[in-house]
Formats: sequence, structure tokens, C-alpha cells
Amino acid sequence: KSEYRIAVIPGDGIGKEVMPEGLRALEAAAKKHRVNVKFDHFDFASYDYYAKHGQMMPDDWKEKIGMHDAIFFGAVGWPEKIPDHISLWGSLIKFRREFDQYVNLRPVRLMPGVPSPLAGRKPGDIDFWVVRENTEGEYSSVGGRMFPDTDREFVTQQTVMTRTGVDRILKFAFDLAQSRPKRHLTSATKSNGISITMPYWDERVEAMAKAYPEVKWDKYHIDILTAHFVLHPDWFDVVVGSNLFGDILSDLGPACTGTIGIAPSGNINPEGDFPSVFEPVHGSAPDIAGQGIANPIGMIWSGAMMLEHLGEKQAAASIVKAIERTLGERTLRTRDLGGQADTTACGKAVAEMI
Amino acid sequence: KSEYRIAVIPGDGIGKEVMPEGLRALEAAAKKHRVNVKFDHFDFASYDYYAKHGQMMPDDWKEKIGMHDAIFFGAVGWPEKIPDHISLWGSLIKFRREFDQYVNLRPVRLMPGVPSPLAGRKPGDIDFWVVRENTEGEYSSVGGRMFPDTDREFVTQQTVMTRTGVDRILKFAFDLAQSRPKRHLTSATKSNGISITMPYWDERVEAMAKAYPEVKWDKYHIDILTAHFVLHPDWFDVVVGSNLFGDILSDLGPACTGTIGIAPSGNINPEGDFPSVFEPVHGSAPDIAGQGIANPIGMIWSGAMMLEHLGEKQAAASIVKAIERTLGERTLRTRDLGGQADTTACGKAVAEMI
Ligand SMILES: CC(C)[C@H](C(=O)O)[C@@H](O)C(=O)O
Ligand SMILES: CC(C)[C@H](C(=O)O)[C@@H](O)C(=O)O
Repeated sequence: KSEYRIAVIPGDGIGKEVMPEGLRALEAAAKKHRVNVKFDHFDFASYDYYAKHGQMMPDDWKEKIGMHDAIFFGAVGWPEKIPDHISLWGSLIKFRREFDQYVNLRPVRLMPGVPSPLAGRKPGDIDFWVVRENTEGEYSSVGGRMFPDTDREFVTQQTVMTRTGVDRILKFAFDLAQSRPKRHLTSATKSNGISITMPYWDERVEAMAKAYPEVKWDKYHIDILTAHFVLHPDWFDVVVGSNLFGDILSDLGPACTGTIGIAPSGNINPEGDFPSVFEPVHGSAPDIAGQGIANPIGMIWSGAMMLEHLGEKQAAASIVKAIERTLGERTLRTRDLGGQADTTACGKAVAEMI
Repeated sequence: KSEYRIAVIPGDGIGKEVMPEGLRALEAAAKKHRVNVKFDHFDFASYDYYAKHGQMMPDDWKEKIGMHDAIFFGAVGWPEKIPDHISLWGSLIKFRREFDQYVNLRPVRLMPGVPSPLAGRKPGDIDFWVVRENTEGEYSSVGGRMFPDTDREFVTQQTVMTRTGVDRILKFAFDLAQSRPKRHLTSATKSNGISITMPYWDERVEAMAKAYPEVKWDKYHIDILTAHFVLHPDWFDVVVGSNLFGDILSDLGPACTGTIGIAPSGNINPEGDFPSVFEPVHGSAPDIAGQGIANPIGMIWSGAMMLEHLGEKQAAASIVKAIERTLGERTLRTRDLGGQADTTACGKAVAEMI
């Protein structure tokens, strides 16, 4: 494509600090590989915007960013000032749902220079993808409260799984498994306890598996699956889960590889009918915001995922390689990884390696 | 009490193999501390019973075991022969719900002789309780399927949280935290994503905390909380969660301490209106059943929890001490822990230590 237009939304907290480093790496990779990217900056989807306008985003947010090729997103949320279910449902969750980004994709990979909390694991031992359903399931807006402020008070919230929603995420996950050397897919379930929706999920997995005879697949209940992430992270290749289970596994996975501070993610609309959102797994971390110490690798790696999604595989690979080399040097890593660099120094190091 | 009557239900698979060792330890501790326990054996809540009678339990199961002082339970389920949501909802989940065992209590403790998958952790570093709501929440029976076998097909399942249900589990958890030296409670939430029930949970935690000014409390979203279990297991003292979150955390916690093979659990009705059920965390493990290699420690430790619940603290402590000493010796541990003993040898070792 002659030119990619990227919507840039730093958001809150350390989102604003890691974003410049994400852009720096993107620019370096774009220059090197002659990819033409243009950035448009937006200040909404942030607490500051909310404080001024009483809502997280302008009414015409879809017109503003809906025609971009992708959205590069920092982090949103500031629980002390605004409840998460307002800030997030007013921004990130809206993107996912209204841009039909039904795939949430996150790598779990043990990188050089990042100490794993698991005993005896080294780079290469852990390398898999978590594929998470990103639009329905447990994150539903159906439910409510009855008998408020009495002893009979209760709340309900429905988990909703549609055939459309379940089948398309499974298809994406099986396709991904099919494309990898191990061709192995693991499904996260809890059909022994969540007795209506989860048996349905299992049923659809079984049906979908028939179309992929070359993919070896298995399933685990989410409770024991989290245990296996810790005890046997080498078992996995592609792990697919519902919105909630995928959410849990894609924080736990990166924790098993040392930190969620460096993990990237894509909120993807595979058909390209809408822009996809790329963001670090970490949140806005108000507790360390403003100190210049945030680790920018999650943001930078998200930029690589974005380039990959746009079809610029070489540019993407050059960023990932630069990340690996940067993490390998103690002076260039940030302090959360036992290194010495601040946010900017780490980001500049990556850009120079590119 | 002059005599305790215990209902003994071995269940399926390795449940039948570890149960004799659980009873052996109980008998030894009872003898030593002059506690009078009588065991009544039942064959229901098993696949064998189901194969004969077409249901998991007799119609009058409540009369049969409802007057016992406690229920000592092995493990149930045999997925190849009977779907989990039939076997479990026809037995274990019925106990929990119809005997109003609203507390599921599980220790997470790093024991001597059990290699932790986490680097650099040693016995004493990890020692906390997971308190799980055990009757409502995500394990609900409300929901269904619409438009079956069409493209519009969808399923729903409601999460249900009642004020009664939430408040009583929180009270139990705060009481437990209050009784421990650290007086620290952590609540598992996901109010940023599960936007109706989980904010309600948070609201009730905040309200309950007011009655416990001495308890320091915090909350984490379940995704990052699973990460903290791996990265900072020393942070926790009492962790309270909904039915699903508690389920996940009480498998993940034991995995972080090396194995779910030794973890015990209690399904408790604190008021004593109904008998409580004590069972190992592990399942029936059909894949290793019949080989005599199952680790009996989870069953034996569950027996200690049962004695503790009955008020026989000394007898309970003598079992836990014997477990620690047995695990400390390689020749007495089972092979899953790098030891040499089979199920019976390990169980006999514990009984002798008592
Ligand atoms: C077997 C299953 C229904 C059960 C649960 O999820 O409650 C088990 O995992 C447990 O933790 O006791
Ligand atoms: C912030 C929150 C709503 C979000 C989620 O649960 O989806 C986050 O944890 C994530 O994984 O992107």
C-alpha cells in the first residue's frame, strides 16, 4: 500500500510515556523498509478528555478514526478518578465491539534478558499464542439488579455466546495453529462447572476441528489450564479461549515469561472492514506514571504486531529483532527488568538497533 | 463430641485408591487423640453407580448422608464415559448447593520436599488461604439455547450474585483474615470487564470491610491476580473470590506450590446446619487410575481439614505434621514428586508418623 494512515491514541498514565517510543520504533522501521506511514494524533479515550467533555470520546469518534488503516493505542484507565467500567466501556471495549475486533491476539514468548519466574526455563522453551474472543461471552451488557438495598437484593449478568461469535474465533485459532510447525490447538473450557455456555463452546470446537484434520487439539478446564501454564508452559502452541478465559490466560502467560510489562496485543478485525487496535497488555499504571520509568517494550512490540497485520512483515521482524537485542543488554533494559535505562533510553536503543 | 459419624464416598478413579489412605490417617490420628470416629461407606456419586442406576445418586441421598457430621469424599468424574456436567452436577455440585456449603476453603502452602515450579521459593514463603464462594455466581442453572442448528443459534447463562450469597462468603473471609497474624484480605474482581456483577461484588467488599477496621484489604482484577500468584505469591494471606474465580485461583495456587496432587479442600457449611464435604483438589484422573501410583496426600490432608472443622484441632495438627515429615523424605513421597513410594506406602508412612 502506498501509504498507511495510523490513528495514534496515547490514552492515560504511562500510555502517554510509552507512546513516543512506540512511534520512534515504527518510524525507524518504516524508514529502513521504505514503508510510508502517517500518524494522526487524538487526545480522546483518556481521563483528561473525560474531565473536559464528560464523556470518554466525541460523538463522532467513528468518523474520526474509522477510516484509518490501524489504531495505535497506549493505555486507558485511572481508577482513582474514574471507575474502570466507565473509562474502559467508553473507549477500549467500544473499539473492540463497534469495530468488530473479534480477535484478541497475544504472544507468550520467553525473551532473552527477561528473568522467568519459572525455574529452569530459557528463551525458546516458551513460545505460543493466546487467541481470545473479544466481543461477546462474559463481557456482556445484559443483566441488572433487583430489590436494591434490601436483603433480597441480587444482580445478574448473562454470558452470551453466539454461533457466529464462537465459530469465527475458533476458525481464526485453527487457521493459526494450522500455519505453525506444531499444529497444536488447546481450547480453554469449564464445561464441568459453567454448564450451559461452556458445553456449547466445546461442541463448536469439536465441530470446527473436523475441518482441520492436521491440527492436533485438546481442551482443559480453565482451572487446571492455569496450573499447566505454570507447570508445563512448553505444552502450548495456540490456546483459544472465551473473552474472560482469554483475558486471564493472556495475563498469566506473559507473567510466566517474566513480566506483563513487555507483552503486546492486537485487537483484530481479520476481514479489514474496520481498523484494528494494537496496544500493550499492561494498563495505564497511574502509580508509576510521570516518572519516566515505564517499560516501552510492550508498546513497541505492539507496533511490530501492527506492521505484521498490515502485511509489512520485514519491517515488523526488524522491530522484534531489535527488541530481543535490546532486552539482552542490561544497560538498555528498564529497571523493572533489572536494567538501568529509563523509558526514553530504552526506546532510543530499540530505534537505533533497527 | 462423644462420636463423629463420617459418610465416606470414594467416587471414581483414583478417588477409590486414595480413600483407604485417607481413612488410615484418620484412624491413626483418632486413636492417638482419643477421638471417636465411625465411618459409613457409600458407593454412589460414582460412574459405577450411574451405570447401574441411571443416576448419580439415589433419590434419598439426603436422608442417607444428611445427618452425618461430615462427608469424606474422594473424587468424581470420568469424562470418557459420562459428561462432567452430568456426573458433577449430579453429585458434588448438588452437595455444595443442597447442603448449602457456601464456603470452599483451600490452603496454598509450599511444603517441604515438594519442588516449587517458581524459582527461588522455599517452604514458609508461600502460605495463604483461598476462600471461594461455592453455591452461586458463574455456576448457575439459569440460561438456555435459542435458534438451535441455525446460524442465529446462541446460548446464554446468567451469573447470579445475591446479597445473601456475597455477604456471607465475604464475612467468612474477613473473619479468617482477622484471625491471622497478617490480617490481610485480597478480593478477586473483574469489574472493569464484567460490568454488572463484578462492580456489585466490589461494592459489597467495600461495605463489609467497614466492619473489619483491623483488616488491610486490596483487590485485583482476576487477570493480573493470576499473574501476581506467579510473580508475588508471598503477597497473599486470605484471597476471596466468586465461584469461578475461586475455582481458578485454588488450582493455580497449588500449582505455584508445586502440584495440585497434594492440595486439600473443604466445602463448608459454617453454621453446621448441613454436613460439610472434604475432598482433595485433584480429580479422579482416569488416566492413572488402577496403577496404585496416585498421591494420597490431598486426601489425607483433607481428612485433617475435616478434623479441624469438627473442632479436633490436635488430631488435625498431628496429621499435617506427619504429612510434612513424609513429604520431606524421598523414599516416602510418591513418584509424581520425584519420590519412590506407591499410594499405599506413602499412606502407611503418614499413618506411622502420626
Ligand atoms: C469438578 C468441578 C465442577 C469442580 C469445580 O469447578 O468446582 C472442581 O474443579 C473443583 O474445584 O472442585
Ligand atoms: C482493561 C480491561 C477491560 C481489559 C480486558 O479485560 O479486556 C484488559 O484487561 C485487557 O486484557 O485488555
